[in-house]
Amino acid sequence: MKTYKAYCFDLDGTVYRGKEGIQSAVRFVHRLQEKGLEYYFITNNSSKTPSQLQQALGDIGIETDRSRIFSSAITTAKYVAQNYKEAKVYMIGSEGLETAFKEEGITISNESEVDVVVMGIDRAVDYMKLAKASMAVQNGAKLIGTNEDIKFPTELGFLPGNGSFVRLVAGVAGVEPMFIGKPSPVMLEVIQEEYGYDKEDMVMIGDNYDTDILCGVRFGCDTIHVNTGVTSTEVALEKDAIPTYCVADLDEVEL
Amino acid sequence: MKTYKAYCFDLDGTVYRGKEGIQSAVRFVHRLQEKGLEYYFITNNSSKTPSQLQQALGDIGIETDRSRIFSSAITTAKYVAQNYKEAKVYMIGSEGLETAFKEEGITISNESEVDVVVMGIDRAVDYMKLAKASMAVQNGAKLIGTNEDIKFPTELGFLPGNGSFVRLVAGVAGVEPMFIGKPSPVMLEVIQEEYGYDKEDMVMIGDNYDTDILCGVRFGCDTIHVNTGVTSTEVALEKDAIPTYCVADLDEVEL
Repeated sequence: MKTYKAYCFDLDGTVYRGKEGIQSAVRFVHRLQEKGLEYYFITNNSSKTPSQLQQALGDIGIETDRSRIFSSAITTAKYVAQNYKEAKVYMIGSEGLETAFKEEGITISNESEVDVVVMGIDRAVDYMKLAKASMAVQNGAKLIGTNEDIKFPTELGFLPGNGSFVRLVAGVAGVEPMFIGKPSPVMLEVIQEEYGYDKEDMVMIGDNYDTDILCGVRFGCDTIHVNTGVTSTEVALEKDAIPTYCVADLDEVEL
Repeated sequence: MKTYKAYCFDLDGTVYRGKEGIQSAVRFVHRLQEKGLEYYFITNNSSKTPSQLQQALGDIGIETDRSRIFSSAITTAKYVAQNYKEAKVYMIGSEGLETAFKEEGITISNESEVDVVVMGIDRAVDYMKLAKASMAVQNGAKLIGTNEDIKFPTELGFLPGNGSFVRLVAGVAGVEPMFIGKPSPVMLEVIQEEYGYDKEDMVMIGDNYDTDILCGVRFGCDTIHVNTGVTSTEVALEKDAIPTYCVADLDEVEL
């Protein structure tokens, strides 16, 4: 396997499972660090702040800068900063999403005339917020969702996910929303834009074909599927666009 | 045109426009009353109570019993009473919808184990209510929406309609919802069940092809399209299933 300049890792199912580190992945990141190669963590989990994600990685033995961590919340804020200069933004979402925007110097507005409507999961979403978002999009604002998950599992069953509410607003306003989280290629685009890599120098590593591998495929870089999580190697190899490499775990990858 | 036993009227665009009566329709109802023929008013408007609808008809010169008025809210309550004996119901909706259920003697429950989840437009809907509805449907409850409107127009633009929220819950729970409002045939089915008509003795009269006429077509009774509202006669005649009769207004219909 060739050596890349930038290794982009999914987290859950690739680097850790819950609070437990996947040791082959931890060893792989250590090897990258020893060789001075660059690595990034990209996750659709926007309920954890960058500090919490940094802490979770530290807990399994991976010391890393916060700047290497791209949650869908952080990436959404960076994407808006990169593409909509001085944008006024109406937001539905958690405190973490609001913090990410403030850190990029973006103004959150409560007016009906805004440039962008951003939606992340919000357990306090209500009719008024959805009506306001729908109106703003009808008035011409771009609709961006941190992720497109229709639902997410809990012990009691599935709860409504952010994608359900984004699709509701999109349906009322009659637009197609844009999503930042994988499998959208935007997270890799933002890393490329921020650090100036060529696509052939980047590789996307993940366990979930439908999010991680498709994200790399849509972006147009190489992909490494690891058999440590959601999608089995067998299933990954049945897809139309198969991963560039399939490995049992990252111990198999030489640097 | 044959004489029917039961004349079922849409309201807005057929009997009145806003506060103004459509005089040919008012005269037609008076002729039905003189001949002793039966008539019913069926409307997707669930924001008005039966008393308010009765008042609106009175204001344009049509005196009628409340029992002849079938809003989607009332019909939803009647449908549940007819089809789910002693049902426990979880409800998202207006006070009007709750009143309709109480009048049918149906218990509204706040438990997670219910037989039916009923959803009508609720300007105070929030994440908790939608999560609870989603869980109840996953636990086996039937999902029923008063109407399937994705959005509705206001002076400022479109606002989210009840159908948007019903589809959200259906998507999370992985079910197909049932809708009561036209073009679903349920409103005509409930009248048939309550009064014991044969389909060939019923006729559905309306201005809107996509709601009124399709409701009659799906139910399987004759239909009369009036050219006094949303759909023009020309457009109605271009459809696959054309109305049984098309008239400029109800003065054309002899009894």
